[in-house]
Amino acid sequence: MATTITAVDVHDVRFPTAEAGDGSDSINRGDYSATYVELRTDSGVVGSGLTFTNGRGNELTCGAVRALSHHLVGLSLDDLDQVAFFRSLTADPQLRWLGPEKGVIHMAAGAMVNAVWDLRARLAGKPMWRFLAEMDTEELVASIDFHHISDALTPDEARSILDKGRDGYAERLAFLEEHDFPSYTTSVGWLGYPDDKVRSLSRTAYEEGWRAVKMKVGGPIEDDIRRARLIRSEVGPDTLLMMDANQIWDVDEAIANMQRLAEFDPYWIEEPTHADDVLGHARIARALPFTRVATGEVAANRVIFKQLLQAEAIRVCQVDACRVAGVNEVLSILLMAAKFGVPVCPHAGGVGLCEYVQHLAIFDYLRVGTSLDGRMVEYVDHLHEHFVDPVSVRNGRYRLPTAPGYSVAMKPASIAEFSFPDGPAWR
Amino acid sequence: MATTITAVDVHDVRFPTAEAGDGSDSINRGDYSATYVELRTDSGVVGSGLTFTNGRGNELTCGAVRALSHHLVGLSLDDLDQVAFFRSLTADPQLRWLGPEKGVIHMAAGAMVNAVWDLRARLAGKPMWRFLAEMDTEELVASIDFHHISDALTPDEARSILDKGRDGYAERLAFLEEHDFPSYTTSVGWLGYPDDKVRSLSRTAYEEGWRAVKMKVGGPIEDDIRRARLIRSEVGPDTLLMMDANQIWDVDEAIANMQRLAEFDPYWIEEPTHADDVLGHARIARALPFTRVATGEVAANRVIFKQLLQAEAIRVCQVDACRVAGVNEVLSILLMAAKFGVPVCPHAGGVGLCEYVQHLAIFDYLRVGTSLDGRMVEYVDHLHEHFVDPVSVRNGRYRLPTAPGYSVAMKPASIAEFSFPDGPAWR
Repeated sequence: MATTITAVDVHDVRFPTAEAGDGSDSINRGDYSATYVELRTDSGVVGSGLTFTNGRGNELTCGAVRALSHHLVGLSLDDLDQVAFFRSLTADPQLRWLGPEKGVIHMAAGAMVNAVWDLRARLAGKPMWRFLAEMDTEELVASIDFHHISDALTPDEARSILDKGRDGYAERLAFLEEHDFPSYTTSVGWLGYPDDKVRSLSRTAYEEGWRAVKMKVGGPIEDDIRRARLIRSEVGPDTLLMMDANQIWDVDEAIANMQRLAEFDPYWIEEPTHADDVLGHARIARALPFTRVATGEVAANRVIFKQLLQAEAIRVCQVDACRVAGVNEVLSILLMAAKFGVPVCPHAGGVGLCEYVQHLAIFDYLRVGTSLDGRMVEYVDHLHEHFVDPVSVRNGRYRLPTAPGYSVAMKPASIAEFSFPDGPAWR
Repeated sequence: MATTITAVDVHDVRFPTAEAGDGSDSINRGDYSATYVELRTDSGVVGSGLTFTNGRGNELTCGAVRALSHHLVGLSLDDLDQVAFFRSLTADPQLRWLGPEKGVIHMAAGAMVNAVWDLRARLAGKPMWRFLAEMDTEELVASIDFHHISDALTPDEARSILDKGRDGYAERLAFLEEHDFPSYTTSVGWLGYPDDKVRSLSRTAYEEGWRAVKMKVGGPIEDDIRRARLIRSEVGPDTLLMMDANQIWDVDEAIANMQRLAEFDPYWIEEPTHADDVLGHARIARALPFTRVATGEVAANRVIFKQLLQAEAIRVCQVDACRVAGVNEVLSILLMAAKFGVPVCPHAGGVGLCEYVQHLAIFDYLRVGTSLDGRMVEYVDHLHEHFVDPVSVRNGRYRLPTAPGYSVAMKPASIAEFSFPDGPAWR
């Protein structure tokens, strides 16, 4: 029986993180927020999706969801033409000008696209990773909009990667069920934290089993060096230490600063410069052979990822689950990364991003990238208590989610408490 | 005496253009709209700025102006630190995530930045082009945010271009006063117009003195060929014929289609593919030596323009006055274009864009590019009647504006009539 979407509800949910310095980096100091979308259906099943925003402008992404919601109301999930559905949200001829395919309007589309996929997975009774991993190659390929990326990935190439991903599938799944998915933590080194807090968090992370940790850089370089030395001394020489500049540097500055930080053996440098600067990332990558350039959390869409891969600008692809327009666009990015041989380590943190991206990384391993080499899911120890089906991490690794859906359904009490501006937390 | 901004008013103004097919192209069919900003001051002088949006999402850019307006209220124009002012709007740590520097939030910043410059020019009693062209080099350089573009343009390079722009200034100004500024028209070939309308508009344009016209392409290729033949037959072999695909094509498709349209001698191909695709534009440019690749109206910010120039992807720079964050960011783009030897032909049309960009093109000729070779301002014959100081065109050329300010102040009656959703036009 067909399921039809009958209403699109949107909630402006915000957490007062700015004051505590949680999530603080060289460029962002916001109140972590979510544009939270619920799709009501005639079957009674609810689809949930969200887009993360870093602060006060969350009403704009909520407004964008409202502006796009007529495309979903009345939509039947049976025989859904995936590309037409995707384009109805990303290329609306009255709204596309506001992006196109970037920023507020695209992030809103991401929440909505993901809510539709959450609904589909729930109706199928499967967690999202399994829903995707067990899907026919043809159905996956038909979910991808190849517009503007056909010079980097053709439907035939996508088909071939996904078919090949069936080989060894059972072994990979068994491995994950036993060993969980590798991860790293970003909770040790926010810029807003004092040194003693960084030291104790680093020590605790090591004791908990983390062997990959990330610190923020991009303050005064002497401070970055001091903090890198401090963290490295706590986590030892065998733990991977990633650095994240959150785009603060110019191209030449990134090169010069990372040459000074080289002594702490950075595994990657994340967002060394402006997220739109494909050529800049490529130049930085060529200049810093001792580390890897990573980016993606603010890469606006598949066309930016396409170029980062074509230009050999990145060695780590950090796709975000809702900055781009949801599952459909993420699929195209995972496939391009696989074609170009670049590992995917999705961006997480924020609100609900860990819950989202664990599914993407697991699917990628099972069916697309088919390797764990260099693969890690970011983990940030924030705000998981607000989710019905939060991530579960043990010994620095993500356990496989088992509940149906995409894991971003929020608890009604949390929505009520943190709704802006009328929830008790904000009154 | 200091002038201080006391309030930021924003109006959601929309014109019902979608139904008539005016402004229709391969990808956009919107109701032309403006997020119209008025800055109230203690001196009584009002600063006006706007950002153009192509349709229904105009409430989002209006909302973004409201989210940013606290940065302007209370701001004194005396001794304004231009870079700090610019970054307060483009890099707000609670709002930057929504872009960054792109889409809704950046376009809103564009309207606000331009309103501040309009106010300054009005207080100085000069039209914007003259206000800029007569400004000291140091003040112009201090208006530019070099963040993320210092690998392509240094303050010293900017200084040198602007100082050199003083040579021959009087002669260039005298030339413009006598001969006006060259232009081309886009009013002949919107995709939504039937052939007989295209034919009669082409004929009329030629008779009015236009020797450069632009047509939309990106429909079925046989239709594009038929329309190109029709327009070329009306305007003769000596009129420049530009083509505009509005990003509809993939990279290989753009190359193949333009090879078929080559027989109509296209002067340029505008937006052949996705606006973010720097590498794609570069490949198209290499493949089509018989024409020029042009883009810019949807290029999100100075970092995209930097790369288009670095990659030799464009031979025509079509900066928009309010897609990027206003005068400050436009200055950096004009200077980069001059350094790379690429002529600037600003994007116009929409709502108030002709009014805006005439000032930019004139300033560029007087002080930056210092040549008219390959320079033309787009002209679209739409909606000028709503402006207090509309553009004046004769014989296919723009006359120099003389009234103080940036020419985008709208008539109060027009604002009232077309305010959405309560104006009489929308009730």
